[in-house]
This record gives sequence, C-alpha cells and structure tokens, in this order.
Amino acid sequence: MIPIRIAACLTFLAFAAAAQAPAPEAATGPAYTADGRLLPPLRYREWIFLSSGLDMSYRPRGGTDMHMFDNVFAEPSAYRAFLATGTWPDRTMLVMEARGAATKGSINQRGSFQTAEEMGVEVHVKDTARFAGGWAFFAFDGKEPAPRIPEQAECYSCHRAHGAVDTTFVQFYPTLLPLARDKQTLSEGYLKEAAGR
Amino acid sequence: MIPIRIAACLTFLAFAAAAQAPAPEAATGPAYTADGRLLPPLRYREWIFLSSGLDMSYRPRGGTDMHMFDNVFAEPSAYRAFLATGTWPDRTMLVMEARGAATKGSINQRGSFQTAEEMGVEVHVKDTARFAGGWAFFAFDGKEPAPRIPEQAECYSCHRAHGAVDTTFVQFYPTLLPLARDKQTLSEGYLKEAAGR
Repeated sequence: MIPIRIAACLTFLAFAAAAQAPAPEAATGPAYTADGRLLPPLRYREWIFLSSGLDMSYRPRGGTDMHMFDNVFAEPSAYRAFLATGTWPDRTMLVMEARGAATKGSINQRGSFQTAEEMGVEVHVKDTARFAGGWAFFAFDGKEPAPRIPEQAECYSCHRAHGAVDTTFVQFYPTLLPLARDKQTLSEGYLKEAAGR
Repeated sequence: MIPIRIAACLTFLAFAAAAQAPAPEAATGPAYTADGRLLPPLRYREWIFLSSGLDMSYRPRGGTDMHMFDNVFAEPSAYRAFLATGTWPDRTMLVMEARGAATKGSINQRGSFQTAEEMGVEVHVKDTARFAGGWAFFAFDGKEPAPRIPEQAECYSCHRAHGAVDTTFVQFYPTLLPLARDKQTLSEGYLKEAAGR
C-alpha cells in the first residue's frame, strides 16, 4: 500500500475509494487505533467548505486524461479557531476529497460539474503531541483506518516550503487568506514567494 | 437593475459584488424587508456545501472568456430535512456563490483554483406562503436586500422543467442525488430526461 499512498500524497489526491458519511460522529479532533492509524472522519461533508479546484497541479505538464475536482473542508471547531487567530489550533483536521468531473449531463453542455464518483479522501491532521513537525497526512482507502503517510514523502516538504499558514495551502482558500494577512500569520516562505512574483 | 438581474438568473450566475459573511445570524429561514426584499444570508459560507462547478453552461456555445467557479450551499436545517426526506422543507434557502478562477498562482501550474474575486451571490428560497410555485430567486448586489427576480424570468421555467427535486438541480449535487433516488423524490421531468439518455 505504501507506494500507492505516497503517489497519492505527491499529487495530494488519492485515487482509492472514498470514505462516505453515514454515521454520527461525536469527537471533533482526530481519533486513532491503538497502532496509530487514523479513523476516517465520516461526516466531513458537513464540515466547513474552504474551496474547490479542478485538475490543479504544480507540475507544468504530465498526468492523465482524467478530470477531477478537489473539495477541501475544515473541521468546524478548527475553522472557528482560524477565524479568531488566523492559524490552526492543535488537533485541526482538514479533508481533501477528490471527485470526478464531467461536462455533459442533464442540461449541462459546457464547463465541468462534480459527479458521484468519489476518487479519494486525504486528511491533514495537526497533532503536536504525536507528530514531529506537528502535522501528518493520511490517505483513506474506503472506511478503514489509515496509516500515516511516511514523513519522508514529498507532501511534507512541499507543504512546509510553500504552505501560506502553518504548512497548509491557505493561499488557495479565498475566505481564509485575508484573515491570515490581517492576523499576520502568513509564513515567511509564502511571503517571499508572493513578493517575488 | 432588472435586466441585469434577469441576465444573472439566466445563467444562474450573478456578476454583482458578493455578500460577505462578517456578522452573526440568528434565524435559519429567509427574512424580508417590509417591501418584500430578501435580506442577504451573511454567513452562507458556513452552511453545508453541496457542490461546485467550473464554467457550467446549458448553452452549447457563447459566453465570455471569463472563467468562474460556482459554489452551492444549503442552509443547515434545510439540509438535515433533505437527508431525512429526500426533498426540501418550507423556508429552505440555497445559495450559489460565483468566484473567479485562476490557473497560475503560488505553486499551481495547471487546472483551476478559486480566487478572492467574488462575482455574485444568488439565493433560491422556498416560501410557500409567499411565492406562487413555492420558490423564488434573488440576486444580491453587495449586502443590500434584494428584490425578487420576476417570475417570468427563464430561471423559473428552466428549474421547473429540469430540476431533479422540487425545481432544484439536485442532479448536480452528488451526495444528495442518491438520497432523492432512495426516497423516490425525483421529479417526473428529470426521470424522463434521464431515461431518454
């Protein structure tokens, strides 16, 4: 499984079957199995939507002919803390869900809409007591608990180098970026990149 | 103002400045001024995300070179009623927010992400005591209350003819469509169209 998970992490898109959202969920922070696997956040579709993208890639070319949206959600208590502080509290969970994109369907003729095809769920977790660097990534294969993506994976170094706030890509979350600017929580790396453009 | 609002309605995308979400909001249903204008739902970004699309259009060609995402949100109590029944309760509010799309930005090289450019907010309201047919559309120009889009506008007849559930485009909301199928709330018009494809 590891190579598949690393590949998913590299594009920050998992191609496994996604976790659906049927059952109630009490806790707001991450929960783990005894051996450190993360339990899937079952009701993330009812969390706070941050943004979506279509076929986003930081590689100039390559990839497949497959088209896909990604939707990013923040656990509500973490979102509220971000509104107050401009950064993420401990035990934050962010979910990125990948979904199929289609053009022709019902009355739609052009552009792209999201389909029922779930193409993966990845979770970015802040848990400073558990992870060196504070954060870890997990890619889910259905509803089973997921092991951590190894910290040597490129997603960690890329998020550390380019994430606008605390290793997260707030530069792509249009309602949060102005808050981070106001609260002066933007990372040095991001500010240097933005100044260089 | 009317021609602009009708044009916005035709594409179900408003090009006016959008309502932001700063202040607290107590009521869950629609609220109106004495002369029947709808108050803007200020915190819709914290509602339940249904789906997003990019440059969706039911016209085979035409339009502008501008690229834009639309994000659709349901007021949470209406969403919960939909989960239970497969259709929308009275006083449902659905918001469609239009946002700019960009390709190059930060580390992104391909595909599209959403920008801070707010390009309009439209609201679809079910209020059977107030509107013949049950539903009405409103397009917001900033944070001012909005008059109803006249019911002769094409958005009404199109939603009536093609909306999968109760004049709404549930066929584009991937987590709700299976619920409507299970609860047998799909419209005859939609079922005929789907059977004909």
